Amino acid sequence: MKKPIKNKSALQEVTGVKQPKTVSTKSIQKIKLKRKVQPTTKEFVSHILKGNIRYLSQAITLIESTNVKHQKKASEIIKACLPFANKSIRIGITGVPGVGKSTFIEAFGKLLTSKGKKVAVLAVDPSSSVNKGSILGDKTRMEALVKDTNAFIRPSPSGDSLGGVARKTRETIILCEAAGFDTIFIETVGVGQSETAVHSMVDFFLLLKLAGAGDELQGIKRGIIEMADTIVINKADKENINAAKLAKVAFNRALHLYPLKESKWQPKVTTCSAFYNIGMDSVWNIIQDYLKLVKENGFFEQNRNKQNTFWLFETINQQLKDNFYQNEKISSLLKTELLKISNQQKTPFEVASKLLGIYFDK
Amino acid sequence: MKKPIKNKSALQEVTGVKQPKTVSTKSIQKIKLKRKVQPTTKEFVSHILKGNIRYLSQAITLIESTNVKHQKKASEIIKACLPFANKSIRIGITGVPGVGKSTFIEAFGKLLTSKGKKVAVLAVDPSSSVNKGSILGDKTRMEALVKDTNAFIRPSPSGDSLGGVARKTRETIILCEAAGFDTIFIETVGVGQSETAVHSMVDFFLLLKLAGAGDELQGIKRGIIEMADTIVINKADKENINAAKLAKVAFNRALHLYPLKESKWQPKVTTCSAFYNIGMDSVWNIIQDYLKLVKENGFFEQNRNKQNTFWLFETINQQLKDNFYQNEKISSLLKTELLKISNQQKTPFEVASKLLGIYFDK
Repeated sequence: MKKPIKNKSALQEVTGVKQPKTVSTKSIQKIKLKRKVQPTTKEFVSHILKGNIRYLSQAITLIESTNVKHQKKASEIIKACLPFANKSIRIGITGVPGVGKSTFIEAFGKLLTSKGKKVAVLAVDPSSSVNKGSILGDKTRMEALVKDTNAFIRPSPSGDSLGGVARKTRETIILCEAAGFDTIFIETVGVGQSETAVHSMVDFFLLLKLAGAGDELQGIKRGIIEMADTIVINKADKENINAAKLAKVAFNRALHLYPLKESKWQPKVTTCSAFYNIGMDSVWNIIQDYLKLVKENGFFEQNRNKQNTFWLFETINQQLKDNFYQNEKISSLLKTELLKISNQQKTPFEVASKLLGIYFDK
Repeated sequence: MKKPIKNKSALQEVTGVKQPKTVSTKSIQKIKLKRKVQPTTKEFVSHILKGNIRYLSQAITLIESTNVKHQKKASEIIKACLPFANKSIRIGITGVPGVGKSTFIEAFGKLLTSKGKKVAVLAVDPSSSVNKGSILGDKTRMEALVKDTNAFIRPSPSGDSLGGVARKTRETIILCEAAGFDTIFIETVGVGQSETAVHSMVDFFLLLKLAGAGDELQGIKRGIIEMADTIVINKADKENINAAKLAKVAFNRALHLYPLKESKWQPKVTTCSAFYNIGMDSVWNIIQDYLKLVKENGFFEQNRNKQNTFWLFETINQQLKDNFYQNEKISSLLKTELLKISNQQKTPFEVASKLLGIYFDK
């Protein structure tokens, strides 16, 4: 079919942008109907390139779908969009719950759209696969940004693994860039390995912190500090101002203990109050300084290449493992062989050799 | 043939225990001859079980060999020895160069043999593959232990990867245990990932440190502190005594910041002077306290099982990758496909899908 979908509620259903509280049988039938008469790949691409948010949302839904046909179509759309992608700045934003990530993203996003930027906000939150929700699910926390026509907010895709969620987000970045979004925020809730995944898909990594009593470095995973290109101490307002200043000094000292980054960038610490809209400009200045440096010294391009290579190998290695462990013969043998190892009848190496022999002989 | 090898220099050549400075053509011919008339698997096993060091050494050489026939024989020997293994305590020892690892191992090893223990000293040092040497290569540093008939010292196997070196060491542990060694030290030089590999094959992990001026925690990889079951501050003698005591307090404080280990063991800090043979007994007491706890609470067995499972999956995953990337079609395509990614003609996911398709279609 040629015409774009006009039925608004059905489209919202497909894209997941706004979920009605109850879904009638009638509306489900409508959705099924609409799904059957999906736009062609060509239509998707041409509308995405024009910045059409509805088509963008629907294409992302195809990326997230478990349906093989949808995935195939998504791949075609991504391939066609690829030459128009890669022109944005990708910013990773992390911080523990309660640090004010939503408020920060809203204030920072509004600052950027006021400067004429187009901002897409994505998330990597594997835990959302459990409750089908997301850290961005509660969009009421970003009311102003949601209404902003130059902003696009998309909750974390659901997926059974961090790898799956991360892949979908990376593909979504491409579509957002093709749709003209020049600034991509990727928020992560900072649980387990999700920061590492986000770090491997962004140009700049921002760590949000609070000024607290006592040792400022307590409770921070060292790896995250090492990844940060800037540490932004939020809620630096009213009675927190002095604590925030002290925290800034402490973090600055800590950051200087690390060896210089491959990007040659010396990470910066700053304070802000997203709630009172104070200090947001200085965050943007830091990012611009960073971009100037890494675009001049070649790290920007080099890093994106490295990230692509990383994702290639990640995807292949994961698939090789899935293929092996999901193999019927292997999965039925594995249990008994593991028992033989724990009974000290066989070494792990012997079992590995047996299972690999069976697998490659098939 | 039935008789054990009698030519001593040839045997030394094969086992690598004592290398003559120059090797004559004649002696090489002898070695080749001796290699051809190797003991049978049965002979190997029966002599190893009797604690014969020469057979043990030669069997380890088979483990380390790149020759497929040798590897097959090694597997048979390991399999036959397996029911007699697993009865030792495996202790990992790490610390930066200069901390006095060799002196510590010598003093600690002598203490244990004086208590009637049989001590095997192995090493995991992937860097030794480059120079065919090893951190244990310089055995003059452990003169007393080398001469001790209840001690067996074996340098790190060479290998092109940490995975290979680690596998060989794990298999060597089994043979040493079958030969009656009840205490296995596994030394690592502490570069890169080798500590993690050693940690995954030992029951107890000992970190050697020096008391230094300034912040005691500076320059320590946090991951290593987390792995340590005890931190032993060496060279606590003469003018260093006070600094060592201060370091002990600092480390104790640091260790208490970490959450309780899965073993329920609270890591201990102690001081010693391996050179002056002071405090070695307290290290042994700590290890005994640890063993008492983890054998009672079941962690000891549980951990060994977990380690075996880890090695099974490690070995399989590595082999799956090797098989893929060493595939002729894949390796010839990979280069051009990587170029297409960096030219933004293809996404990493598209290339992964193409390569996997070719690989599994073969």
